[in-house]
Amino acid sequence: MSLLTVGSVAFDAIETPFGKTDKIIGGAATYISLAASFFEKNQRIVAVVGDDFPQEMIDTLAEKGVDLEGLQIKAGEKSFFWSGKYHNDMNTRDTLITELNVLENFDPIIPASYQGTEYLMLGNLTPQIQTLVIDRLEQRPQFIAMDTMNFWMDIAMDDLKVTLSKIDLLIINDEEARQLSGVSSLVKASKIIREMGPKYLIIKKGEHGALLFHGDQIFAAPALPLEEVFDPTGAGDTFAGGFMGYIASTGDLSFDNMKRAIIAGSALASFCVEKFGTEKLLHISQEDMESRIQEFVKLANFDMVYHVK
Amino acid sequence: MSLLTVGSVAFDAIETPFGKTDKIIGGAATYISLAASFFEKNQRIVAVVGDDFPQEMIDTLAEKGVDLEGLQIKAGEKSFFWSGKYHNDMNTRDTLITELNVLENFDPIIPASYQGTEYLMLGNLTPQIQTLVIDRLEQRPQFIAMDTMNFWMDIAMDDLKVTLSKIDLLIINDEEARQLSGVSSLVKASKIIREMGPKYLIIKKGEHGALLFHGDQIFAAPALPLEEVFDPTGAGDTFAGGFMGYIASTGDLSFDNMKRAIIAGSALASFCVEKFGTEKLLHISQEDMESRIQEFVKLANFDMVYHVK
Repeated sequence: MSLLTVGSVAFDAIETPFGKTDKIIGGAATYISLAASFFEKNQRIVAVVGDDFPQEMIDTLAEKGVDLEGLQIKAGEKSFFWSGKYHNDMNTRDTLITELNVLENFDPIIPASYQGTEYLMLGNLTPQIQTLVIDRLEQRPQFIAMDTMNFWMDIAMDDLKVTLSKIDLLIINDEEARQLSGVSSLVKASKIIREMGPKYLIIKKGEHGALLFHGDQIFAAPALPLEEVFDPTGAGDTFAGGFMGYIASTGDLSFDNMKRAIIAGSALASFCVEKFGTEKLLHISQEDMESRIQEFVKLANFDMVYHVK
Repeated sequence: MSLLTVGSVAFDAIETPFGKTDKIIGGAATYISLAASFFEKNQRIVAVVGDDFPQEMIDTLAEKGVDLEGLQIKAGEKSFFWSGKYHNDMNTRDTLITELNVLENFDPIIPASYQGTEYLMLGNLTPQIQTLVIDRLEQRPQFIAMDTMNFWMDIAMDDLKVTLSKIDLLIINDEEARQLSGVSSLVKASKIIREMGPKYLIIKKGEHGALLFHGDQIFAAPALPLEEVFDPTGAGDTFAGGFMGYIASTGDLSFDNMKRAIIAGSALASFCVEKFGTEKLLHISQEDMESRIQEFVKLANFDMVYHVK
């Protein structure tokens, strides 16, 4: 199958209790494409960077099977830049700098060769751009997933509701699910949010794993218990990329296969947080990933045979 | 096998956002014994009540296979009473009243017929009493589990460390694990705590499930996602009781069987929170429990077959 990812390709500067970085490669679409590449070898990307973005990373994406016709490179302009500092608990962070740069006037042009893409992952961007991408695809993808964030709920809720009405799966965290639904019970929130459009909902709970809701079915996946989370940046995008890469590569939209896709995404996310930025994702092998998935099997699976005296 | 539970048998008065109760039956040993009775039919109890405690509940415990020779009934005295009010998020609560009454001078007398009990569950009590019970058992039980709380860490840490050095399994919540270990990472905490004595550690995470640690193995069990938690009182004791009842009835201390026991405990705890106090536990059937366990199988299990194009 084929997977199209739309989102930021950018620079980050990150500070955590364990250290800080200069400008390093970041961006939702970067993490998503890298993670998805462990499963799906036929990927496309619609994004924009300035001419400050390193050719080396573009080459890396190409090597991993990402078609880059949809990556716009704006001469004389700068790539999107975000800088943030995590608090000691690693669950909250302060944004220090946001420079939109090329993202300010991003027009998501879909190359003709991308028409007919079967799976679409909309990384966190303005809901207007997300909707524009869906509308520009002449044939609706078989499955559309999206990420968003509380910022858009605050300033563009009407636009966000339009996007939500057009997608199949929303992937957000617990705090965002509570804000979007207005209720604190995640089970109740999942019903309210799915009435807005998406038939599937994944609620990410960080160190507590993730929940998948569809109809009356729920799947609860754990996160891998780690001694330290070194840098959480990109973990959510890596999870989404692993999930969608798995779904696209298998072409199987059953609930059982979505469970597997969540484990695949969780395994990749557990690597992502071990080093700064994309560093770890770029240096693990297919075997590393497969053995991490087996750790999840041991961590979460049980064989319920019980006998009462 | 046989299971001995030591802990409070008491009255509670509870207020939650959904309503409030008068004095109702509570106490750690009550919840533990009721939950364990779904699996283990050969139970014993060491506890103390006043003569205000209803004979009806004593009869109910007896019907469920709990030998009551070790239940002391103090004429002219009153049973332990706790009253608390849960905050809107149900994760925190204020204690309104604590009347120790008969617990103030509780001497945990072990009936001769209880010697040789194979499994011991020490409900939350002063560490001194917990240690006394272990010391009074002439033959060490095959497996000793205990609960405790932050209160004893605050005022009786030295005594607590003595008890910890004598047990096999500690069952506490995440906040207690962080306080006991002095670190915030639960993986690190699990190592520090297990160096204090118990080879097994269960960390309860409320709506996020529970983690079991042993050697290098970890099992992550989810909690059942619920629309509402009506009353969390006793959920932790119910979990422990279900766990130990399962372990005692199967007599199997393998890690795989402990996974099953955690699911059994989680299933019973998910019922417990649906109504005030012990009400729900008293009205579910063996079939209700078994079907709830099957919900956990669907919720948590996955079959990892993946194929990369």
